[in-house]
Amino acid sequence: MTKKAATKRSRQNGQNGIDQLTVQKIVETAGDVYGTILKGRKPELKFPVRALSNVRYSADKGYFEIGRQKKERTMTVTTIKTFAQTLKLMELSKELVETDDFATKRDAYYQSKNWDEARFDEQIESDACMDDIEALFSMHGINREQLRFYPEERGGAVAGELIVIDSDPETGARIEIDCTRFGTGSYSIPHAVEHLEFKTKAKFVLVIETGGMYQRLQNQKFWQKAHCILVEMGGVPTRATRRFVRRLSDSARIPVYAFVDCDPYGISNIYRTLKVGSGNAAHLNQFFCVPKAHFLGVTPQDIIDYQLPTHPLKEVDIKRAKDALKNDPFFQEHKAWAKAIKQLLKMGVRAEQQALAKWGLNYVIEEYLPNKLKNRKKFLP
Amino acid sequence: MTKKAATKRSRQNGQNGIDQLTVQKIVETAGDVYGTILKGRKPELKFPVRALSNVRYSADKGYFEIGRQKKERTMTVTTIKTFAQTLKLMELSKELVETDDFATKRDAYYQSKNWDEARFDEQIESDACMDDIEALFSMHGINREQLRFYPEERGGAVAGELIVIDSDPETGARIEIDCTRFGTGSYSIPHAVEHLEFKTKAKFVLVIETGGMYQRLQNQKFWQKAHCILVEMGGVPTRATRRFVRRLSDSARIPVYAFVDCDPYGISNIYRTLKVGSGNAAHLNQFFCVPKAHFLGVTPQDIIDYQLPTHPLKEVDIKRAKDALKNDPFFQEHKAWAKAIKQLLKMGVRAEQQALAKWGLNYVIEEYLPNKLKNRKKFLP
Repeated sequence: MTKKAATKRSRQNGQNGIDQLTVQKIVETAGDVYGTILKGRKPELKFPVRALSNVRYSADKGYFEIGRQKKERTMTVTTIKTFAQTLKLMELSKELVETDDFATKRDAYYQSKNWDEARFDEQIESDACMDDIEALFSMHGINREQLRFYPEERGGAVAGELIVIDSDPETGARIEIDCTRFGTGSYSIPHAVEHLEFKTKAKFVLVIETGGMYQRLQNQKFWQKAHCILVEMGGVPTRATRRFVRRLSDSARIPVYAFVDCDPYGISNIYRTLKVGSGNAAHLNQFFCVPKAHFLGVTPQDIIDYQLPTHPLKEVDIKRAKDALKNDPFFQEHKAWAKAIKQLLKMGVRAEQQALAKWGLNYVIEEYLPNKLKNRKKFLP
Repeated sequence: MTKKAATKRSRQNGQNGIDQLTVQKIVETAGDVYGTILKGRKPELKFPVRALSNVRYSADKGYFEIGRQKKERTMTVTTIKTFAQTLKLMELSKELVETDDFATKRDAYYQSKNWDEARFDEQIESDACMDDIEALFSMHGINREQLRFYPEERGGAVAGELIVIDSDPETGARIEIDCTRFGTGSYSIPHAVEHLEFKTKAKFVLVIETGGMYQRLQNQKFWQKAHCILVEMGGVPTRATRRFVRRLSDSARIPVYAFVDCDPYGISNIYRTLKVGSGNAAHLNQFFCVPKAHFLGVTPQDIIDYQLPTHPLKEVDIKRAKDALKNDPFFQEHKAWAKAIKQLLKMGVRAEQQALAKWGLNYVIEEYLPNKLKNRKKFLP
């Protein structure tokens, strides 16, 4: 794409602001290094420490926040290569923003093969370097996708009362994608979603763990009956899916309801990660968590109320549930959750969302979801 | 959905023929059992043996075909439960076809919880029973999706010069989905694709292994420059993706070019499975293989010609490559492939498709793909 088209597209998408900030912060950071060298001193870069020990939980903000600890990387004989690589990666990011291009972690690694002495020998090195840069710029409210480093994985499928506004990558022409017009298919979320805008009159977003359940709700046009937007997560949602749901719920000011299996994996790994983020990548949570998420089901109480077929909790389930109760600030903050998890442990069983099929394949649409949606105040926090 | 809408939709999609055949074959099979019982004899069902030992390779047909071996299941005291379960599952399939509904393997398992004595205790039992039924009906040219048993996984992403024709699941109204109008997003292939139709002037389908490469080609609108359709496989393609590509290439009469990593996994597990199917599920291959597929790259020779960065072959790569040479009828049939794999083993290295990024992120679009497409006769078979 030409720079002209890139600029046109950025303008269409109202992206200039954040792109300008990104380039400005890169130039400032590099300028500081350069200035320090000119003064005959050793330049240094400061990165937030990325570790569970450097995390604050703020119930108000609704997500795990990264703390104030920093690690410094001073340019010395032993650090000079990493130092140079960090600056080269930042330069690549600047180029990508200016040309509206992108690189995956793997692309960036291979790009470095032409950086002579500054090339990375293994992708694990370039990944770590990119994570540092991501953490550094997150302090300025800039995320990795805005630096134009895209994840390998695209996001989940979407259908329902939503128009996604994108633009033609070449001409910048506005494109409206009507997610009610997919038949049995879906809109597939791209690898990066920063430039997307949304038009919707939907009342909520329903995020769904399994593909089979998603396809059922889509085939039966549940989104039309319930005035909602369906999003298939397919297990733990990708970065692109989380960011898409977050931006959508912010821009449309609608809640997000999670419909997942009733087991510690669905509750802790999928739901908790979606809502408040995770501990070991806390610099991401400000962008990726979905504080407006609530837990529709399947709850431990649903297993009793709907007489669902169950499986015994596995060893790993029990460990995960006990860990959540003991160490996870989210479940400690919300008493209703601690109670539900204790109930699950006491029952000693788990149930899949598709277990509702015992009562008929479309019971979920005709009975379960309408019943649940009548009592939204009962959703777990 | 009402039966009326279902019928309307079936008619719109020209599905009546196969649906009628499906119901007819279910009724015939059950009728035979019933008739035998009325005569006071023990009824039996015959299933094709699903094993590598019961596979024929037909170079003309272009895929591994299931052989003539059958296993018989006679109703006796010990088999009566499995026998009843098989008939109940067939009954479920008949209902699903008649109401244009579907069930995943998991749905079917939970449905059985209301079948009293015929309920399945574990999903592994209902899965095996469904596989038997699938093999049985495959002899009549009916696949599992036509029996309305859908896979859990949806298919990959699609963009480019293609209009997918689907219909509104409720009203049966025709829906046209223009895959040039997605911006940076994509069309997501539904879990079952039997009812889809296609309109396209594209010259070929390009199936791509990694998400990162797919997103690059989509963002740069490579499909417009090359008049093609892009399909993201994301590793080994799902059933839905394989069937979609197969139906598309048949209906549009266009070839399929595979663009994958140059390693034994990309060549054997991804490409060979796409083109001729697999040995241990040979009853599927008639529906799922894509005989019109050719291998664009990355070839072992490309590693040399384009001076790509490489990684050493791993133990598992070497084993996989040697297995392919020794045991795989596909690689034995095609000398060019045997030669290429021997070359790779001799070089002792592998290369990812994103290794082309060494020469610039868009080198793949500006140089590599145009060069390769000029010499399509050189594609590996």
